[in-house]
Amino acid sequence: MAAEQDPEGRAAARPLLTDLYQVTMALGYWRAGRASAPAEFELFFRQSPFGGAFALAAGLRDCVRFLRAFRLLDADVQFLASVLPPDTDPAFFEHLRALDCSGVTVPLLQVSGPLLVVQLLETPLLCLVSYASLIATNAARLRLIAGPEKRLLEMGLRRAQGPDGGLTASTYSYLGGFDGSSNVLAGQLRGVPVVGTLAHSFVTSFSGKEVPPDPMLAPAAGQGPRVDLTPRVEAWLERVCAHLGLGVQDPHPGERAAFVAYALAFPRAFQGLLDTYSVRRSGLPNFLAVALALGELGYRAVGVRLDSGDLLQQAQEIRALFRTTGAQFQAPWLESVPIAVSNNIDEEELARLSQQGSEVNVIGIGTSVVTCPRQPSLGCVYKLVSVGGQPRMKLTEDPEKQTLPGSKAAFRLLGSDGSPLLDLLQLAEEPAPQAGQELRVWPRGAQEACTVRPARVEPLLRLWVQQGQLCEPLPSLAESRAFAQRSLSQLSPAHRRLEPPAGYQVALSEKLRALVQRLSAGAPL
Amino acid sequence: MAAEQDPEGRAAARPLLTDLYQVTMALGYWRAGRASAPAEFELFFRQSPFGGAFALAAGLRDCVRFLRAFRLLDADVQFLASVLPPDTDPAFFEHLRALDCSGVTVPLLQVSGPLLVVQLLETPLLCLVSYASLIATNAARLRLIAGPEKRLLEMGLRRAQGPDGGLTASTYSYLGGFDGSSNVLAGQLRGVPVVGTLAHSFVTSFSGKEVPPDPMLAPAAGQGPRVDLTPRVEAWLERVCAHLGLGVQDPHPGERAAFVAYALAFPRAFQGLLDTYSVRRSGLPNFLAVALALGELGYRAVGVRLDSGDLLQQAQEIRALFRTTGAQFQAPWLESVPIAVSNNIDEEELARLSQQGSEVNVIGIGTSVVTCPRQPSLGCVYKLVSVGGQPRMKLTEDPEKQTLPGSKAAFRLLGSDGSPLLDLLQLAEEPAPQAGQELRVWPRGAQEACTVRPARVEPLLRLWVQQGQLCEPLPSLAESRAFAQRSLSQLSPAHRRLEPPAGYQVALSEKLRALVQRLSAGAPL
Repeated sequence: MAAEQDPEGRAAARPLLTDLYQVTMALGYWRAGRASAPAEFELFFRQSPFGGAFALAAGLRDCVRFLRAFRLLDADVQFLASVLPPDTDPAFFEHLRALDCSGVTVPLLQVSGPLLVVQLLETPLLCLVSYASLIATNAARLRLIAGPEKRLLEMGLRRAQGPDGGLTASTYSYLGGFDGSSNVLAGQLRGVPVVGTLAHSFVTSFSGKEVPPDPMLAPAAGQGPRVDLTPRVEAWLERVCAHLGLGVQDPHPGERAAFVAYALAFPRAFQGLLDTYSVRRSGLPNFLAVALALGELGYRAVGVRLDSGDLLQQAQEIRALFRTTGAQFQAPWLESVPIAVSNNIDEEELARLSQQGSEVNVIGIGTSVVTCPRQPSLGCVYKLVSVGGQPRMKLTEDPEKQTLPGSKAAFRLLGSDGSPLLDLLQLAEEPAPQAGQELRVWPRGAQEACTVRPARVEPLLRLWVQQGQLCEPLPSLAESRAFAQRSLSQLSPAHRRLEPPAGYQVALSEKLRALVQRLSAGAPL
Repeated sequence: MAAEQDPEGRAAARPLLTDLYQVTMALGYWRAGRASAPAEFELFFRQSPFGGAFALAAGLRDCVRFLRAFRLLDADVQFLASVLPPDTDPAFFEHLRALDCSGVTVPLLQVSGPLLVVQLLETPLLCLVSYASLIATNAARLRLIAGPEKRLLEMGLRRAQGPDGGLTASTYSYLGGFDGSSNVLAGQLRGVPVVGTLAHSFVTSFSGKEVPPDPMLAPAAGQGPRVDLTPRVEAWLERVCAHLGLGVQDPHPGERAAFVAYALAFPRAFQGLLDTYSVRRSGLPNFLAVALALGELGYRAVGVRLDSGDLLQQAQEIRALFRTTGAQFQAPWLESVPIAVSNNIDEEELARLSQQGSEVNVIGIGTSVVTCPRQPSLGCVYKLVSVGGQPRMKLTEDPEKQTLPGSKAAFRLLGSDGSPLLDLLQLAEEPAPQAGQELRVWPRGAQEACTVRPARVEPLLRLWVQQGQLCEPLPSLAESRAFAQRSLSQLSPAHRRLEPPAGYQVALSEKLRALVQRLSAGAPL
């Protein structure tokens, strides 16, 4: 499989985006005559993140893009030659130059192929899957907390680990259940819905003395003469201030000029950022004056945003004022203008903002979705499970770090209510479990076997790349998002709840457990 | 300034790597006739991260690369047209097509230029500086904990936020004081020293039955016949096991075969990973047998690595065994073979591994350098301070979020011992403070002024880009690394210590403070 044109203009990762030990091991395998030994690795994590019982596995698309484009350029090989011993056999570099992933097969996320190649893939695949899965899971948790109605927007690009961290965050928080992102590149490259209006700098950049080159606005319906928006706004300001018990000098003229400028640019999508100076004395009356002036022309303001203070309480107060003001001025649409909030919102604050009776409609989250502060990395690993057809196992003295040997299949066993009972790992050569038949399985960590009779059985590993070729089209991001939400909805409430969840069981088949026991006892490999 | 060929094959960030509201504000500015108003933003953070008193500012190179390449492609403008209102004036898109940073001036990190352009730069500059500075500071803390002697290696690529997060992490942890990285791409693109040897999978991939195609190795000096390494290793194994009180069956034959394969590939850089099976019963005797066999041929093993268990205690035991074994077999070089450790090392564990008498020489850190778990984001902001020559200030009800208005200069005032006393912010038009002259300044947050007489004054803002042109060559990464270490060494111990540090003061000049007071009191802008 040759390197091909990447739709995003570059591969998700370059072949040298890897740890040097992958390359030194490649030389070791090659020198030992084992570069092409058939080998299989598994990519997995040991514990669901954030203390929860579930995780969304994400990153498949980036992995496939990376595998399809995998080829070492001359410059790459030359760089490797500069960091390997000077007397390294030149034939090794010829071998590297010819490498691609044409021998590699990937169901998610078993990777089998020539030992040297599948070893080299370790770091980039971990890099592509681990954070994607972490943030998708984080986003899914936030969605569960917020409930289905609130609009959740990711706006953490500036808090991410550089450009690509930001792109990954926006893509996979959408997959995990967010509604959109502020990140324009995620819209362009990944099709994530993008959202955004204005920042405080836009507001502070206006003093109120600016004169727009064209202050005229046509009515929404397109009928009738264009009108100068500014005097209309000033007239409404007097009425609004009287209604709110404020002086007309209280609202900041620069903020109002900024709102007018924004309304002239976005008459059908006017939104006010209320807290640059004072919400109650300035932002709100200025917003109402502009919104009502636009309303006369047939335009409906689309929202307000708060970025400081007690967001829940302010939202209640603003909604109440929208009601009385809408009633006062025969503008009933004002009552339902969406209220958006942001400002370091974490899981606890999100729960508060999502409580019954909250008047918050849209919630923007940056740092705490992007950096996953409760657990900033997932700890995915990529372990060798078979080579030359023989099972392999790491038998360290640290039982936490032991691996499960052998080429495996994985199944999800579901109960009669459709929710998953447990996931079963077995050897690839074993027959698949059958619905309605009782099975004896060994839950991980348990000393005793148990029996389970699944009402339904779903294979978990799906073959995406066979001998370097894509087996079926990848799902779109929106399809993956829908799949993730469906999967989460099928989890039993005990597994879905965030804390303390019931632990979800993974069990081994009797044959797989017997192999583990035999290899642990030191049977020759 | 036209887009130019980027040495890394792509710019650090694309122009659309930005929040949508930057674009909607651009339209707002344009519609208000203010796109070209001269404006100035400042990029800063409010608090040093991790509870410390210092931070390293990093990311300049990426910012300059981004500014120099900044241009919207046709496809970019088309995408923006698809997310802006359909009736947006086509002349706005023509304006976007013609944009570049030729009007932009950047001392670190004041950004001045046409309002519309410098607004658009907000998100990517924050994205490029914030994480770079955070991880450089994190790395500097880890270096302070480890002391100057330990070799610190960053190996967190797989724990980073995708490919670019990993590249940024490797680059800036080196800048902050690490010695190298496992990330090959960081070596190729940024010149970071790269390091790596072998993983457990390399060890478990061997069963011991493999036959190397070429088992012969020439002596290190090149003189004398090539010898078959394997029987030499087996002979040494018997002697080593007898010395250690082990049976020759105890050490795992597959692990030994892996070590032999690695030694054949890297005779001058042989390193053993000891904990795949059992350090004491397998990894250590296998390593010693191979190292001693290599030693006979004039090669010196370069290290061992431990990745589990009590790293400090094992290092002490291994060093003791190296001593007795070296003495037993007349191989005194064995005594000083470096011991490398890894496995979720955080600040506390690093302090333990770095204590007096520790036998650990090399420390690999992944997750806790890359994800900065003590504080996963820096919270940089980018605030408008002047437009059209007039100072601007955000006067929110949340005093934490107030900004300092006006175009400013910044100076570091140093005491007679050469360590910094405080940093002074003043208006750009004020004369620079003079060494030896007493100054009245207002420490931030204090209610009273104080006086200071600096022995030396250093300007802090340096002009890197003027009207889009680079003013002087950027320092190399190694130069920046040396500069950072020098700066840290000049800090007083009270500011440098990690906890609890003495707070480092930033003060305002009288004129700047007066401007803040005047604008806070609601003087017309």
